[in-house]
Amino acid sequence: MSESSQLEDKMSNVQLDGTEPAPTVDGEDDVVDPWNVTSKSMTGVDYDKLIKKFGSSKIDDELIARFEKVTNKKVHHLLRRGIFFSHRDMHSILNLYEQGKPFFLYTGRGPSSDSMHLGHLIPFMFTKWLQDVFDVPLVIQLTDDEKSLWKNIKPEEAKKLAYENAKAIIACGFKQDSTFIFSDIDFMNPSFYLNILKIQKLVNGTTVKAIFGLKDFDSVGKFSFPAIQAAPSFSSTFPLIFNKNHKVPCLIPCAIDQDPYFRLTRDVAPKLGYVKPALIHSTFFPALQGANTKMSASDLNSAIFLTDTPKQVKNKVNKHAYSGGQATVEEHRELGGNCDVDIAYQYLTFFLEDDDKLEQIRKNYTSGALLTGELKKILIDTITPIVTQHQEAMKGVTEEVLAQYMTPRKLKFDF
Amino acid sequence: MSESSQLEDKMSNVQLDGTEPAPTVDGEDDVVDPWNVTSKSMTGVDYDKLIKKFGSSKIDDELIARFEKVTNKKVHHLLRRGIFFSHRDMHSILNLYEQGKPFFLYTGRGPSSDSMHLGHLIPFMFTKWLQDVFDVPLVIQLTDDEKSLWKNIKPEEAKKLAYENAKAIIACGFKQDSTFIFSDIDFMNPSFYLNILKIQKLVNGTTVKAIFGLKDFDSVGKFSFPAIQAAPSFSSTFPLIFNKNHKVPCLIPCAIDQDPYFRLTRDVAPKLGYVKPALIHSTFFPALQGANTKMSASDLNSAIFLTDTPKQVKNKVNKHAYSGGQATVEEHRELGGNCDVDIAYQYLTFFLEDDDKLEQIRKNYTSGALLTGELKKILIDTITPIVTQHQEAMKGVTEEVLAQYMTPRKLKFDF
Repeated sequence: MSESSQLEDKMSNVQLDGTEPAPTVDGEDDVVDPWNVTSKSMTGVDYDKLIKKFGSSKIDDELIARFEKVTNKKVHHLLRRGIFFSHRDMHSILNLYEQGKPFFLYTGRGPSSDSMHLGHLIPFMFTKWLQDVFDVPLVIQLTDDEKSLWKNIKPEEAKKLAYENAKAIIACGFKQDSTFIFSDIDFMNPSFYLNILKIQKLVNGTTVKAIFGLKDFDSVGKFSFPAIQAAPSFSSTFPLIFNKNHKVPCLIPCAIDQDPYFRLTRDVAPKLGYVKPALIHSTFFPALQGANTKMSASDLNSAIFLTDTPKQVKNKVNKHAYSGGQATVEEHRELGGNCDVDIAYQYLTFFLEDDDKLEQIRKNYTSGALLTGELKKILIDTITPIVTQHQEAMKGVTEEVLAQYMTPRKLKFDF
Repeated sequence: MSESSQLEDKMSNVQLDGTEPAPTVDGEDDVVDPWNVTSKSMTGVDYDKLIKKFGSSKIDDELIARFEKVTNKKVHHLLRRGIFFSHRDMHSILNLYEQGKPFFLYTGRGPSSDSMHLGHLIPFMFTKWLQDVFDVPLVIQLTDDEKSLWKNIKPEEAKKLAYENAKAIIACGFKQDSTFIFSDIDFMNPSFYLNILKIQKLVNGTTVKAIFGLKDFDSVGKFSFPAIQAAPSFSSTFPLIFNKNHKVPCLIPCAIDQDPYFRLTRDVAPKLGYVKPALIHSTFFPALQGANTKMSASDLNSAIFLTDTPKQVKNKVNKHAYSGGQATVEEHRELGGNCDVDIAYQYLTFFLEDDDKLEQIRKNYTSGALLTGELKKILIDTITPIVTQHQEAMKGVTEEVLAQYMTPRKLKFDF
């Protein structure tokens, strides 16, 4: 599973491999697929167009109201604010929850650098919230095999990154008794392979070329990989967790660029007698330099990393966060700032939980009452504790803790 | 691994799947690849042309002499008679043996019906002899995944066939302490997958299309399968057997139609820091109706099955074995028979060990001194004990014995 936010990495994969990007979706200038997310607009990708192109459903007020009614909890701010904005079959999952019937969560990450950044936290923050709310099993796939295939790194190296990334994921606070994290390479086993094989049997070269833009000069590993990302959507991949219950439905929280994998998964599911996975999609986390630029592990200033010191966080925000403010204080006071392109404000929508406070900030910045430096300070004060708390949590993730999460095992649920 | 002899099955695979045969090799009318072996000639495929096309080496008198010198044993009649006729790097293997250095044997079978026939025995008879002579580890791959991909059968069904076939293979007399037999589906594990992934990364769509005749409408499982047949050539696939010794050389006895898989394997081996596997290739076992026809599990009269009764063996040979004799006894006495097309004689070259006796039969049949009925009786008397002894041996292959051979484990060798 590629994370949506490490876009530069994806672009360089593509270049390393010689693959031309496949413009699977273009809302005028937008391109969105698992390896390319580009937009020429300062406000980023046009998500309404994307929903239409992908054929998913918009998360509307009605769904959010139902979510709150069924769970008896206020929904997560990422959902309230339309950062998780699109879904497939989310109503079915709420029906199951309402009826006390089982389902499970599946998400993942393509481990491409040993240091994760703030954007990588988003799907995991939201998934942790889903785990807390629903109290269901969660499986997290680390696609070290994919990273080795698309990037110029050895499988052994990709596997190491997977284990490093797993520590950072665990530090997000997932419950050990409900969470199984696995590296594809190290988890590979007969149950997993049986589903992979069944999926590979149903998907042909024409299909993967059309969906993923593959060419004949691409490795056969790339041709067959989509089945490996699809297989964990089916509970029979995890007999230790689900016993012989092959029809436990699955909900996949992920960035929208991963949807092509799961359209394919949903297409094959009924042919295998399995349940189509439901999905809940997020938008993309913008780079510091603006929503039309790319974050890159090789450009340390394009993102705030979970390993950054408070001083680094402060400097990066102050120096590199693209501003929607005016050129001078005077002009800003007069004309106001543009929250739609201001990265400090955008980041606050991801990390500042208090809706009233956020709305006040939006009003004040738009009116010009709040200056760019002041807005940036609010962001710094908001994200610095998140980063330092994550660093604290990481200290507790020893090799022993890592092994607990990554050992194939029964979780606390009976099936 | 497809067995060479179940040709009709292969042809029907191809039809079921809609794949057009890829004429990778044609010696005028011959087609030889892992799914197609056809010849319009009554004497079957032109093997000298095949050696030239495939770029392998002919097994000549010098190699056979060296084989006997190094092993201090008379070579197997399948080798003496040119049934194992082609090789790659066989001299390197003899060097290793001479120097007391380790290597291992790898062969396999695509389990396509629950009843094996005489032709299926050939590679295993020869491999058993190699095991006896060299006293090295042997791994036997049952490609249930391949069979599921190419045939219209479920993986679970193909797996069952693999286990049934394993019993018949064990009944050939392989040493339990030196032999590991595995189903791809059930053996799949991180070490195996790591090599598969490494190979899949190095092989692209263009290559598998060229070598195996795949088209875009073929399943992606077919695109990636060659890596699964390649991986057991490398000792790192079997850490329980070879410990951390990743460079134990491999010798693969197989029918020549499997060579495309191993040309690909030999191509990737140095890029992975592994040793190229050596190969020793057999010709094809002819159908009862003649070398230009096909054996088929669905046509019970095209082959002698290991489950046939002595009466069935007798009837099949008498009724269906294509004769190189003349229309009447008088004509036969006068003109003599043609051993090159006579199936009874051809089968004797596979199963009658005594060279002098075989040569006498050839002379007598060619001269007309030996009649077709007499020749057929010799064949019946030769193969009936082989079939019944195999049936006896099968009785000893209980589920417990099967499990012993198929449990991943250390063999008697230290690495």
